[in-house]
Amino acid sequence: CISGTRLYQDILKTSRWGQIGHTTGMARLSLSDEDKLVRDWFCQSALDLGCQVNVDAVGNIFAILPGKNMNLAPIAMGSHLDTQPAGGRFDGILGVIAGLEVLRTVQESGFQTYAPLAAVNWTNEEGARFTSGCTGSAVWSNHSSITAAQQMLTLDDSPCPTTMKQELQRIGYLGSLASDFRSNPLSGHFELHIEQNTRLERQGKRIGIVEGVQGIKWYKVTCKGERAHAGSTPMEVRADAMVASAKIIASLEASARLHGAFATVGVLTLERSSSNTVPGHAQFTIDLRHPSAKILDQMEAEIKSNMDVAMKENPKITFELDEVWHSPAVRFDTAAVACVAEAAEARAAPSGVMRMDSFAGHDSALSASKVPTAMIFVPSQGGISHAPEEYTSKEQCEDGAQALLQSVLAYDAL
Amino acid sequence: CISGTRLYQDILKTSRWGQIGHTTGMARLSLSDEDKLVRDWFCQSALDLGCQVNVDAVGNIFAILPGKNMNLAPIAMGSHLDTQPAGGRFDGILGVIAGLEVLRTVQESGFQTYAPLAAVNWTNEEGARFTSGCTGSAVWSNHSSITAAQQMLTLDDSPCPTTMKQELQRIGYLGSLASDFRSNPLSGHFELHIEQNTRLERQGKRIGIVEGVQGIKWYKVTCKGERAHAGSTPMEVRADAMVASAKIIASLEASARLHGAFATVGVLTLERSSSNTVPGHAQFTIDLRHPSAKILDQMEAEIKSNMDVAMKENPKITFELDEVWHSPAVRFDTAAVACVAEAAEARAAPSGVMRMDSFAGHDSALSASKVPTAMIFVPSQGGISHAPEEYTSKEQCEDGAQALLQSVLAYDAL
Ligand SMILES: NC(=O)NCCC(=O)O
Ligand SMILES: NC(=O)NCCC(=O)O
Repeated sequence: CISGTRLYQDILKTSRWGQIGHTTGMARLSLSDEDKLVRDWFCQSALDLGCQVNVDAVGNIFAILPGKNMNLAPIAMGSHLDTQPAGGRFDGILGVIAGLEVLRTVQESGFQTYAPLAAVNWTNEEGARFTSGCTGSAVWSNHSSITAAQQMLTLDDSPCPTTMKQELQRIGYLGSLASDFRSNPLSGHFELHIEQNTRLERQGKRIGIVEGVQGIKWYKVTCKGERAHAGSTPMEVRADAMVASAKIIASLEASARLHGAFATVGVLTLERSSSNTVPGHAQFTIDLRHPSAKILDQMEAEIKSNMDVAMKENPKITFELDEVWHSPAVRFDTAAVACVAEAAEARAAPSGVMRMDSFAGHDSALSASKVPTAMIFVPSQGGISHAPEEYTSKEQCEDGAQALLQSVLAYDAL
Repeated sequence: CISGTRLYQDILKTSRWGQIGHTTGMARLSLSDEDKLVRDWFCQSALDLGCQVNVDAVGNIFAILPGKNMNLAPIAMGSHLDTQPAGGRFDGILGVIAGLEVLRTVQESGFQTYAPLAAVNWTNEEGARFTSGCTGSAVWSNHSSITAAQQMLTLDDSPCPTTMKQELQRIGYLGSLASDFRSNPLSGHFELHIEQNTRLERQGKRIGIVEGVQGIKWYKVTCKGERAHAGSTPMEVRADAMVASAKIIASLEASARLHGAFATVGVLTLERSSSNTVPGHAQFTIDLRHPSAKILDQMEAEIKSNMDVAMKENPKITFELDEVWHSPAVRFDTAAVACVAEAAEARAAPSGVMRMDSFAGHDSALSASKVPTAMIFVPSQGGISHAPEEYTSKEQCEDGAQALLQSVLAYDAL
């Protein structure tokens, strides 16, 4: 049995790296100084256990506990230690620290698995600091090129943005290992995560058996108009990038409601803005989600057509829509899901579990195309996530970690 | 006669302080390092002429050339040397440097006026760096308190905003003189400015005789919702501060068109924003303009009612609307306007001038309540202002400066 107390203490202890003031909020942006500190702690804890620790070219960390058969690729328990600019203490973090807790439990028990086991920290899952999410797992699984990833710029609008490669170098996590599922293979990927929704909570279930993840598309939008004087430029001759963007944002919300999809504009910046200047340049992000690729395409077409209408109505307005991330909808491997189901039912009884898909994106959605993958969910209080109020209890974390342990043992036995 | 060449050379020469790259754009935000450099140049130029230079508690600079009767308060030629974050080389700057050119011309001619003459640089006219415009003239004319002005915070969303007082101290322009029209009086205020609209250009006129300024109201809006996960929070339960703000912005544009008014959202910032987080906190500015106070009140009421509707529809959304600046519509002094009319017609013939009101706000709108005031406009190419493309030719600047000289001489003779 894993130790829920040790696990929870590690979660709370490491939350000091990135804690926002005295709140439960976390700002541990990928490859920041705080991210370096928690990475150092993770590596040292794994080394103390006798693990081998490998870092690849995109900063993914693989902490490997030897198995009986060292020719087998490790069975991974992966997630991420980075957070949103104002996120919580559990999203991603629970999965990595629970992986470490499983390694500890196995090592202390004296039992040796056939395959090696690995706790994995994937880089920039949140996509909050660099422009696309799940970067580490996307490169490893060959969805993105290492060059494109390393050249990604920080998303903040500072005058001198830095690249992911520069940041990897700066904090000492530009590894020598190629980031590639072929040269650095895994034989399975299991991820424990908070649900980030209220389905478990509402139905009074303890563990979710995750069978797939909906599709995600991210875009960067640039709207150009004309800077002008707010006091003396008649409304009729303006090309106001803020107003044009506001109309797109309002119509996007209506479209998402219509399609039963998710659509979000999370970031919007105006260039050299001022109270009495009509904005001439706006940039914003769009995040679209739905299980059906067809609906996503349809929503994209609607956005484009709204932009076309705006550009026709006012030829001095231009919109550019660039896709920056696409995580297609996935179904998880049935054998891996079966291992999770067995483990979850052993822990919470059949009445305490439920099968579901994930609304949020995860590294598992990327690994799934290359290696048998499944996920375990535990409840998030009120469904709150990507917010300081995110909360999952010690008992709930323990449920998840125990199910993670049993899942990998079951998979190892296959 | 003033020297158009010397005037224009000074405008171009001093534009290096704040020049954006190799463009004609200027970023000389109030009390920045660049503003200090141009202030130093202005003071030194005035001292070289034998002027007395006084600086008051809000950083206004009064460069005074003695007159025959030193008991008379100076006749001022004032405007501002600060610019927008991406403004041009003429807005405000022309008026101050033309004031200096008038002092030079008078001093070189050997002629002495009855009253002293003053070239005045008012602080933070643009309102781009600190939250309300025409700060220097508003304090001097007792529209704002010195304490409120000195405590204003920089508008950028840096983690440690500084106050106006700190910035005045830092650049050495926290003067010992009280900023007050009673203890530091002027006997008139004349301001040469670019028109920032196309009325002169379209009608082929050279000089505008400005008889008044429309009313301006500025607001700071704070919209609070709930941070949430963009991928797993259903549209129906969100409290999205970006979407709620976008709807207000779109309706504001419609309202301005309806009323024949001006409405602008120039600044919008989202707190700790991220692509995949539903914004929980948005802040934006509103700038409203109309000659009628009734229409301004009506537009304000419409904004409030739209906000009320949004808050009723979604009780997790709140809006706060704070008025941060009010520059009421003003009519200028008829005697001062008559001096401008006489001077403008002398320069450009009656067929080359036109009477008009100003759409933009000016320090003159504040001084007008305390001292006879009038303004002179020269054309702005294409009406472009608050943009790097702002342009007024040497000949047009010369027209304006010559009319300024004749206006103050005519006023002095009264
Ligand atoms: N699980 C999670 O919050 N991942 C971040 C990627 C996303 O779904 O936006
Ligand atoms: N003239 C001018 O651009 N002043 C700035 C204040 C305003 O009108 O917004």
